[in-house]
Amino acid sequence: MLFELLHQDKNSKARLGKLSLAHGQIDTPCFMPVGTQGTVKTISQKELSDCGAQIILSNAYHLFLRPGKEIIKKAGGLHDFISWEKPILTDSGGYQIFSLALFRKVSDKGVEFQSHLDGTKHLLTPEAVVSLQQDLGADIIMTLDECLHYPCGMDQAKAAMERTLDWAARSKKSFVASDNQALFGILQGATYEHLRKECAKRLAEIDFPGYAIGGVSVGEPKDLMYNIIRLCAALLPLNKPRYLMGVGLVQDILEGIECGIDMFDCVVPTRYGRNGTAFTSEGKLVIKNSPFIEDFSPLDKNCNCYTCKNYSRAYLRHLFNANEYLAPRLISLHNIYFFLELMRNAREAIAQDRFLEFKKEFLTAYNNNSA
Amino acid sequence: MLFELLHQDKNSKARLGKLSLAHGQIDTPCFMPVGTQGTVKTISQKELSDCGAQIILSNAYHLFLRPGKEIIKKAGGLHDFISWEKPILTDSGGYQIFSLALFRKVSDKGVEFQSHLDGTKHLLTPEAVVSLQQDLGADIIMTLDECLHYPCGMDQAKAAMERTLDWAARSKKSFVASDNQALFGILQGATYEHLRKECAKRLAEIDFPGYAIGGVSVGEPKDLMYNIIRLCAALLPLNKPRYLMGVGLVQDILEGIECGIDMFDCVVPTRYGRNGTAFTSEGKLVIKNSPFIEDFSPLDKNCNCYTCKNYSRAYLRHLFNANEYLAPRLISLHNIYFFLELMRNAREAIAQDRFLEFKKEFLTAYNNNSA
Repeated sequence: MLFELLHQDKNSKARLGKLSLAHGQIDTPCFMPVGTQGTVKTISQKELSDCGAQIILSNAYHLFLRPGKEIIKKAGGLHDFISWEKPILTDSGGYQIFSLALFRKVSDKGVEFQSHLDGTKHLLTPEAVVSLQQDLGADIIMTLDECLHYPCGMDQAKAAMERTLDWAARSKKSFVASDNQALFGILQGATYEHLRKECAKRLAEIDFPGYAIGGVSVGEPKDLMYNIIRLCAALLPLNKPRYLMGVGLVQDILEGIECGIDMFDCVVPTRYGRNGTAFTSEGKLVIKNSPFIEDFSPLDKNCNCYTCKNYSRAYLRHLFNANEYLAPRLISLHNIYFFLELMRNAREAIAQDRFLEFKKEFLTAYNNNSA
Repeated sequence: MLFELLHQDKNSKARLGKLSLAHGQIDTPCFMPVGTQGTVKTISQKELSDCGAQIILSNAYHLFLRPGKEIIKKAGGLHDFISWEKPILTDSGGYQIFSLALFRKVSDKGVEFQSHLDGTKHLLTPEAVVSLQQDLGADIIMTLDECLHYPCGMDQAKAAMERTLDWAARSKKSFVASDNQALFGILQGATYEHLRKECAKRLAEIDFPGYAIGGVSVGEPKDLMYNIIRLCAALLPLNKPRYLMGVGLVQDILEGIECGIDMFDCVVPTRYGRNGTAFTSEGKLVIKNSPFIEDFSPLDKNCNCYTCKNYSRAYLRHLFNANEYLAPRLISLHNIYFFLELMRNAREAIAQDRFLEFKKEFLTAYNNNSA
């Protein structure tokens, strides 16, 4: 893996980069559509590629439980199994074990849990999670971490941080060196600044080719989240990619870019899409609302996606009300395109040292939504 | 509308034709994917076009109830509303009123019924149904008919036939002559040969540019269905297109072509697709079955559709089991392609006077399915 910093915005921490991975190059800041179960919900791999997605995220926890590692190995790895030739990042599943599993018992050894699908019991150690992801063949793999919800006490946050650091060191030790895969460490420490600082310092000592900020967007207020992102981004090594996990909404991403984040992922485009909410340059649009009954304009007049080039709000509203599969599909596709286009425009703005103006203009139009 | 008979198979009644409509040409025999509510379920209009669909079917009854005629008129007609530039045939909704509506009362005037969506009461007359479809702007529109389920008594069948004929005459009278639209009459008479004969004769006297065979695939045994199709096709004018409504499965379509049918429609490709059943050259394949767990071959090794070119049975099975939207979508897409490819191959065989061999070979491979 090679990460090149191409340009630093003159008026903010926003930065332009290029990440070279085994399966292709990624322009950063980038947005990674989420394909939890090996599919970005409702969207085909060709559509993802047509939208300009350069990398997608998948989830080791989900794939471990279903269809299982052996099937994916026999298919020749995750890329071949899901027919996606470009880079893949797999999340370790730490967050999922803590949020989805029916039962969990964390010890220094690892996490024992019951599958949310069928109740079967499993033990995942940091080493097993690295091995799993190496077998899946993802370009970027994540260490197992302990992710807490907000709010949490300082002692609890410190214990989880210590465990995350211990697991990070063990993960690095068990990682089989590979030109095709990079292991990222995850920064925890909840909303405690001193813990974040300590965690960043000790993670950097372990030395990873890239770092993720975990434990944000877990229920904390927005202001606090932005503070933590700003703090954490500043703590991480300048010459390594910085990945903000599971964030987020449009404004969150722009705040993150301003702080110097390089990589984002979120289920928002497809989750909102399935529920009939489109992201547009003029804000969010809830397709079932009555003003769209006879609105023959596209979701977003400024958008070049397949949905906007071909279909009207009135048609999409009809499809959504008629419970037709095409509605979540077309709106999700638009949303994915919208997020990827947001990143393209952000990168262009950074290259021209006008990221702050871009952010301001974008959010002004976005928040003045009267639709 | 222009219908040209290009070739007559030397060894069967199968025939090759070309139907020229306002929105494009159709090679016959053709299969029309069904987009009941203005969308072929799970499939985009671009995908339909890429699969080679030359015409789709939509349903006036459904569109009348939702989103309503006015919205579609304001959109510039059904083609513009759904963003489909090629021909559309709209079914009158006779069948749907008889199968879906909560309550119906048939009189000489028309049909009173309650919407299956919200219980609202409506009256549709033959004239209103023609006017509705003319407003929708379909290339081919169908008369309102009375369609009975099997079995039905002879008196009942005769009464429905008389009503269908009366409505056909009134439909033709109310049809506003147009270069862009053609009104087809529908042949009824249940399984009574003498009624079918009488109905065909009297329909031809009314004189339509094309004729549909209705009242088949309504619960009767296959042998009886094939007999009725053979009888009816032979009764219809040679130089007019013959449309067999709502049929059907692979074998049914091949039997129909052999009898001289030119047009088919059926929900089977998408309904089966949504349920995880794929049609292949070696028979039907139920994707959730365990033999496919580690089967990395495509649904059909002889198929060039997007699904088969990119995805394995194992991946599709995973998607289906994980309840992912992409599963019904990819399998439906394959099925649509499969039916359209079946028609392409049938047309090629007719052109070479080897339709019967083609049919035999196809069904041998199809029925020897051990998958």
